[in-house]
Formats: sequence, C-alpha cells, structure tokens
Amino acid sequence: HPERKGAIEASEFVEAWCEKAGYEVLRVTKASQCQGLSLVLSLGGDGTMLRAIDLCLVYQVPVLGVNFGHLGYLTEIEPPELGKALENFFAGEYELEERMTLDIEISRQPRGTSESVHEAERFVALNELVVEKSHSGNVVKLNVSIADTHFLDYEADGLIIATPTGSTAYSFSARGPVVSPTLRAMIMTPISPHMLFDRALVLDSNEAVEIRVLQGPHATIMVDGINRHVLAPNESVKVRSSLLNALVIKLGKRDFRVILKSKFGLTEKSMGSILD
Amino acid sequence: HPERKGAIEASEFVEAWCEKAGYEVLRVTKASQCQGLSLVLSLGGDGTMLRAIDLCLVYQVPVLGVNFGHLGYLTEIEPPELGKALENFFAGEYELEERMTLDIEISRQPRGTSESVHEAERFVALNELVVEKSHSGNVVKLNVSIADTHFLDYEADGLIIATPTGSTAYSFSARGPVVSPTLRAMIMTPISPHMLFDRALVLDSNEAVEIRVLQGPHATIMVDGINRHVLAPNESVKVRSSLLNALVIKLGKRDFRVILKSKFGLTEKSMGSILD
Amino acid sequence: HPERKGAIEASEFVEAWCEKAGYEVLRVTKASQCQGLSLVLSLGGDGTMLRAIDLCLVYQVPVLGVNFGHLGYLTEIEPPELGKALENFFAGEYELEERMTLDIEISRQPRGTSESVHEAERFVALNELVVEKSHSGNVVKLNVSIADTHFLDYEADGLIIATPTGSTAYSFSARGPVVSPTLRAMIMTPISPHMLFDRALVLDSNEAVEIRVLQGPHATIMVDGINRHVLAPNESVKVRSSLLNALVIKLGKRDFRVILKSKFGLTEKSMGSILD
Amino acid sequence: HPERKGAIEASEFVEAWCEKAGYEVLRVTKASQCQGLSLVLSLGGDGTMLRAIDLCLVYQVPVLGVNFGHLGYLTEIEPPELGKALENFFAGEYELEERMTLDIEISRQPRGTSESVHEAERFVALNELVVEKSHSGNVVKLNVSIADTHFLDYEADGLIIATPTGSTAYSFSARGPVVSPTLRAMIMTPISPHMLFDRALVLDSNEAVEIRVLQGPHATIMVDGINRHVLAPNESVKVRSSLLNALVIKLGKRDFRVILKSKFGLTEKSMGSILD
Repeated sequence: HPERKGAIEASEFVEAWCEKAGYEVLRVTKASQCQGLSLVLSLGGDGTMLRAIDLCLVYQVPVLGVNFGHLGYLTEIEPPELGKALENFFAGEYELEERMTLDIEISRQPRGTSESVHEAERFVALNELVVEKSHSGNVVKLNVSIADTHFLDYEADGLIIATPTGSTAYSFSARGPVVSPTLRAMIMTPISPHMLFDRALVLDSNEAVEIRVLQGPHATIMVDGINRHVLAPNESVKVRSSLLNALVIKLGKRDFRVILKSKFGLTEKSMGSILD
Repeated sequence: HPERKGAIEASEFVEAWCEKAGYEVLRVTKASQCQGLSLVLSLGGDGTMLRAIDLCLVYQVPVLGVNFGHLGYLTEIEPPELGKALENFFAGEYELEERMTLDIEISRQPRGTSESVHEAERFVALNELVVEKSHSGNVVKLNVSIADTHFLDYEADGLIIATPTGSTAYSFSARGPVVSPTLRAMIMTPISPHMLFDRALVLDSNEAVEIRVLQGPHATIMVDGINRHVLAPNESVKVRSSLLNALVIKLGKRDFRVILKSKFGLTEKSMGSILD
Repeated sequence: HPERKGAIEASEFVEAWCEKAGYEVLRVTKASQCQGLSLVLSLGGDGTMLRAIDLCLVYQVPVLGVNFGHLGYLTEIEPPELGKALENFFAGEYELEERMTLDIEISRQPRGTSESVHEAERFVALNELVVEKSHSGNVVKLNVSIADTHFLDYEADGLIIATPTGSTAYSFSARGPVVSPTLRAMIMTPISPHMLFDRALVLDSNEAVEIRVLQGPHATIMVDGINRHVLAPNESVKVRSSLLNALVIKLGKRDFRVILKSKFGLTEKSMGSILD
Repeated sequence: HPERKGAIEASEFVEAWCEKAGYEVLRVTKASQCQGLSLVLSLGGDGTMLRAIDLCLVYQVPVLGVNFGHLGYLTEIEPPELGKALENFFAGEYELEERMTLDIEISRQPRGTSESVHEAERFVALNELVVEKSHSGNVVKLNVSIADTHFLDYEADGLIIATPTGSTAYSFSARGPVVSPTLRAMIMTPISPHMLFDRALVLDSNEAVEIRVLQGPHATIMVDGINRHVLAPNESVKVRSSLLNALVIKLGKRDFRVILKSKFGLTEKSMGSILD
C-alpha cells in the first residue's frame, strides 16, 4: 500500500533487513513475479492483504500480513514486530494456515456479438462474490441453482457467496453466520431479500452455485470488493470452491475469534444483562 | 400510468361514466390542479398510488387506488369494480383512512457556493426515506440524531426511515417489523449494518431524525423510490412526521394484514411444521 | 426489596427524612394502601419497580425508582441522590412520565367444572405478557386473533406481547424492535417460531390480541415475569392496552436511549468497523 | 412406532415379504441387537428415525425411513413404496448417505457425593444438543469454550449445538443458517440471547464446545428432544463431532433442499414480490 507513510518506511526496513541477511527483495505487482518466491509481505490493511493473496495464489507463495490499518482479520503482526517476524519465518518458526478461496467464472456476452457467443472470465476471491443491484431503488431478480439443480428465484438487493474467511465481512452485515476459517464451505447470504425466506445457506464446498439475472435490472458483480462486470439476463456467474488455497503465515496464536471479539467489543462487560 | 393498456381503457371508462353522471374529469399531473377536487383515481400499481398521493396531499384530496399491478397494499379495487366503486363513492358509502406521511427536509449546499450557504428542499413520503451508499462496495458512515440528541454513528449500506405504511416495503426486506398503518410512528431500520447493533427502532411520531454523512463516501437520498439528492458531509437530511395525512378511500374490509398474508403466501399450509 | 442491605438502609433514611419534613411514611404491600398517597418509592431494581408500579396503578400514585440493582431502565436515581430527589419531588420539580400498560384477561375454566363454565382473571403488565411452552422440547401451537379477526396460527416456543417499555426486555431477546416508551403500541414477537414468518408486529394500542392454545401441549402464561396460569385448549387470554398508565417520576434527562446504549455497550468504539 | 396403525400393518407386510424372500426379521429395541444386521427399517416419522439411528450407530447398520408422519427430512419413502424399496435394497440399488452425529459427554456430580467426584455420561445426537432454561421466566448464564479456549459467556434462554442435519430443526427456529447435510460442521445458535451478539457460529467439526452453567438457575440438557440431565454449576457438557456417522439409505433423488422448499411452502408463488 504505497500511499501509507508507515508502509513505505516498513518497506525500507524490510529491504535493509533482507540485504543484511542475504535475501533478495522484490516489489510484486503481477502474479507472474511470484514464481519461486519464499514469502510475500503485505504492508497495509485487510484490503491490501486481499490483493497480495490474489497475486500469490497461482504459485502458492505464503503471505505475511503487516497491519497498517485498523485491527484486521487477515494481517498477523503490527509494524514493530517486523524484524522478529522475519527472523522467525526464515528460521521456520511459523505455521501455514490454508484458507479456502472461491473460483468464480463469469460467462459473458462480448459487446456487439450475437446472443449465442459467450466468453468466460475467471476470478478468485478470498472473501466473497457479491451479485447486487446496480442502482438505488432497484431490486434484482436472481435465478439460483445449487449443485446443478434450480433452488429458488430471489428478489433482493443482492446475494453474497462468501468463504468462511469472508463470513465476518459483508456476509456478516447481511446477517450471515460466523464460520470458522478452517472449514471448507460456502455461505450464501441474501441482501435485503424482498421475501419471507431470508436465511443464509451454508453449502458444502463441492456444491457449485450458479446465478442468472431474471427480467428486470442488470446486476453488478463484485469480487472481493472490486467491480468486475454488470451481469445481463443472458449471462451467468458460477462459483465453486477453488483447488488453490491461500497460504497465510501464522506466527502466534491470534485466533480469529479473539479478533472477532475485539472488533465488535464483545467483552462480557459490554453485553450487559437486560433484566435485573 | 399511461403506459399500461388496461389503465388507458379504464380512464376512458371513467370519463364516460362521469360525463353521464354529470361530474367533471381532469388528468392531474401537478399538485396545484388538485384544489377543489372531490376524488383522485390512481390507475396503476402501488408506485402510481404513491405519486397520486403525493400530488393530493396539500389540498387533502382523497385517492382511490385501482389496481393494475400485482396485489397492492395501497390500491383498493380491481378494474372491473370501478363502476360500482364510483357509485359508492358519490353516494358517500366509503371510509376515509388517514395514513401518516413523512416531512423530509434536505439541507443542501448549492454547487459553487461556500460551505456556509445552505438551502432547504422539502419532500413528502408515504413509504420511506432511504439514505444509502451510492456505489457497490462502499459503506456509508451516518451520524444519526433522534429528538435533537446524538444517538449513534452507523456504518452500513444505508438507513431507512419508514412510515407504518412503508413497513411492509423496503424496511421489511431490511428485517424491520410490520407496523399497523393506523399507528403514528417512524421505523428506523439499518440496511446491512457493519456492526452488532442491527435492530430496528420504532420512534414516536414527534421524534425527528436527523442524518449526516461522516467522512467517506457520499450517500444517495431516495424518497419513495425516487432519487432526490446525493448527500455530502456538510449537508443533512431531517425527517419528521408530517401534519398532512394521506387520505385513502376504503370501500370494503380488505385489511392490510389480509394483504400481507396474501403477498407472502402466509397460509397455514405453507408454514409447515418442522418437527413431526 | 427487603433482602438487599442497601435497600433497608435507604428505607431508614427515607423514614428519617420524612419525619423531619413532616410527611408520613408507609410500607405498601397492597394496592388498597395506595389510596391518597403522593408518592411511592421503589427501592430495588427493575423487578421491584415492576411490582411497585403494579400496586400503584389503580389509585394512580406516581413511583420513583431508586436503583439497587444493575443499571435499570425504570429506576431513576441512585441511592446517594435520595435526599435531593425527595426535596425536588416535594418542591414540584419533576416530570411525570406516563407509560402504557397492558390489560390482560385470562378466560379460564375452573377445575372440576364443565367446559361451558369460564371465569375471567385480570392482570396488568408494564413489560409484557408471555405465552410459552411449559416444558423443554415442546412447541406450542397458538391461534392468534388481532382486532377480532383471525391472523395466524403460530408454531413456536411462545409469543410475547410487549409494551414499548418492555421492548428492551424479553421482546428484545426474541429479536423484536426497540420502541420509544412514549408511543402507545403493542409489540407481538414470536419466540423461536418454527415457521418462515418470524417478524415482529407492532400493533396500534386499540388492536386487542387474543390467543388460544391449539391441540398439543398447554402453554404457560407469564405476566411481567410471574407465572400466572397454564392455558388449556378451551381457554384463552386477551390483551389490550390499559386505560391506566403507569406514572413514573422523572427528575433528570436520563433518556431511555442513553440507558440502552449503556446497557449494551453501544459506544462507537465497541461497534468497530469490519472492513479496513 | 407401535402406536400408529399404518406402522403395524407395514411391519406385518415387511415380515411377510422377508419370510418369502428368505430374510430374517427382528424387532430391534436395543443397540446390542443390531450386531450383524443388514438393514433397520424405521416405521414412523422423523422422531422414530432419530431413535432408530441412535440404536444402529455402534454396529453401523444402515437405516431406511418409511414415513408415517408429515413430510420428513430423514425418512426416504412412503408406505406404498415399501415392497419396491426392499427389492432395491437387497439388489444393491441404493446409496448410503453418511450423516455426521454429535458425541456428547456430560460430566456430572452424582447425588450425595462431594464436589470433586464426577462421572461421565455419553450420548449421541443426530439433530442437536440443547442447553436451556428449566423454567419459564428464567435465563441461564452459560460459559462457553470452543477448542479449549473460553469464547463468551451467554445470557440467554439457551444454546443449541446442531449438526447440519439438525440445522433445519430447532436451530432453524432460533434463526440459525441452513447447512448442507454432507458438510462436517457444528452450528452453535443462541436461543433468545439477552445480548447484542445473537449470531450463529458454524464451527469446524474438530472444534469441541464445552458449556458450563454460571451462577443462577440450572439448565436442562436435551439430546435430540429427550431430557437427559439438569446441569448444575459444578458440572459441564462437552460436545464434539462423533467418529461414527449415521448411515441413511437413499433410494431416489429427494434432495434435502427439495424437502426444505416443500416444508416451508417455498414456491416462487408464495414468496410474492413486495413492490409492484
């Protein structure tokens, strides 16, 4: 994250540290640069971490998150711990946590082509895929199939397909459950559904979900917070668990539930009894 | 609703009926045309009805909704019942239902003026005011005061302030309660709040709500489904119950809870017991 | 609350204060003792306050709550403020807040009588009426009428009919909305409903609710937390807003929303943003 | 289920069918009788099926559910299909579905012993473990540890730990998510929690949950709907995924989501759009 001042200082610190220790340092901006790397450092918040993990996925490079934002679910250490963390890593004193990612395939019709022409575009998500209304005041009508069987048509502001890692992000806001990050599952949570059935579904990782837009407004496709496409009625998006896991470096015991409690102020004191 | 074929036929029927009965007919497109009218007919769905009620509010003209959409909460009769309904109305055989409306005041800074210049713009809503994110992937941070006292800062996709009439519309999708339309109250329902406190608040009709945007993305203001403004951090929107009620003609006993049950398929059969 | 040590000391303080000021003091244990009183003090928590208000309702005596429990919604002052509070009260420096109560009528069949004999028993509630399962593992099937019209049959652990005052008590736990205490309304919130329709209804204060048990297990009736009856299939309970309001002394500006925020640790800090 | 008339007739039919086909038939009432059996038939509803699965677990005998109740999640065929089903089973034309079960261990202090004496009692559940208040009007205070780490203290009517199979039973009523039955996970759903954090947690199958009662009322322990113990403050209950799966015979393609839709009337028609 080159715009945060602390992040720049940290990157200088890392360069100096590595030079002294005899390791080579590289600024990674493309996935192809990751081949053969031992470690990628993410200097920023959870957003920076999402992009770093995306870059590292194909060559399966582990990522260590250094937090320059608020308390993060994905980042592991604070800036002052960097030196110690690098020592631990190169001494092999760390754990590798595997996080499930989503394999998203948009089947789209290129502009100016006939309806029968479709091309596929693929994305990877660590948090979630969102298919939602493009404009205020609209609802989208979405035809949803699970494991190749039509499940339901949703009329809603949108639909979230999240990984366990993403269950504490947007899916949480839409009233989805909190899912342990080591589980291999997908959480389908409707956003402001205009219907009685408003419950989240937790799917097995091999149950692919396919979404089409029914008549009415088109829908915007967001992948880990980035706008990727506007879905038209003759197009579709299919999501399944990816074969490639994100590899996240764990140095201590900072459990995701500890972060959850800290994020939401879930101390006993703050949950005060209602009745006397 | 001039684009629905049935609605055009119905308007011709009304003209013929009124001519024969000696009443004058007018196509109303501005509130000023409503002065002195006995009745306004809304030929369309609930959306058409919302606009008709908006036009009729200042001169307190009652509105009769003729339904050309799906089952509607606001419309009272189906097209074939029009003749009988007009007879009943002019014979005085009807009830007048008063529905609370919202008085919405946007305090905005005109383009090109300094920050200290503000001008007010006012709107009326029968269903709801929505203050929400303008773009996918954003959340808005909203500072909310109730009865001139700061209540909370919300981090959410948006916030809905609904009338009891609007409690079965967007506020319902956002998990708000269903409120009897004769109650004078305002329902404040957060949309996908990124925080633990996600409960709806039901306010007394004299508790005005004022909303400001905090640092971060601007927010879109929707009034009964129509985009009215993009709210910047130095602007605000204030909503209170209006002194003017919407006047809706009731001819039969079609209770709003009967419509609710019908809309959502709330028959006993469809709610099947889970356990044996 | 004669078992709390602080409460006993406080009652001695009050006796001494009143003797000096020339007022008579009385320990009230029956409603009939309230006739002609200027003020009743409740020395305890919200539970004590509920009982004090019950006693004071018929003769419309105002109640001042002195808090000896956790932070309470109903109590107004802390023990050290007692002297000052009594001065203010007798100097007329206070506000009288009127809180809606529920008029509950159980139509029951006395033991050993034939099915056609019914006798009515009436109760008043400041917080809520609960009709719920009597034993773990059961669900109750409840036939619910609103304003003399059958609404729905519920299959649930139970059903809560709360006042606005009670909306922050048990109804809150069952996911009901938070309702301003000055509103005249009833909140009907299902407890763990075994059906899709799980939304709370906010009713106008003149819409009486009548509940019957359908075939299956009997249901326990709780009035403000006290077990009052076990409802059999040929019996019913009817609840409406009472004509008698509870009169609560307000000395300062301690708003119920301030208490709500304090109870639930609703500070901005504790609601931490989820995304970076 | 010997009290349902159809079930008796069916059992006579099965005896005749097996005699003719040369198979031996046995009425199973104890787990020890299951050793060496090829198949156990459950003639009843989902409740009968729960008991049959419990009996069959240790010797891993598959169960075929014949439905004599309402539409069931667990039963596979209707009575008239019995003959065809037996033929298919013995011809090997079936699938064996493995359902995760819970291994529940209650650490209890026997009556009349000192506090240091504890004995363990173990149960298996296919649907859920419930730890809940024993009496109306109480809440229980529960200390919850996950994976040997204290998570939170809950103040609630109770807490449900469900399997994916149980996610459509009581956990659903308490607003838990719907979880695919092939997933290995545990769902922890609070019942009417008196606190802001009311979200369900979906845990990995290796994350054991341990629950203790804090000061205040004791809690009732229900295992698949059967009352098993009243938990006192110096006792605890621990639940983890069992190594033994329930084996359920599948003959057709009746997907659990099809049953879900049927149970709740989840047809498109019944979910009517709210807005026009």
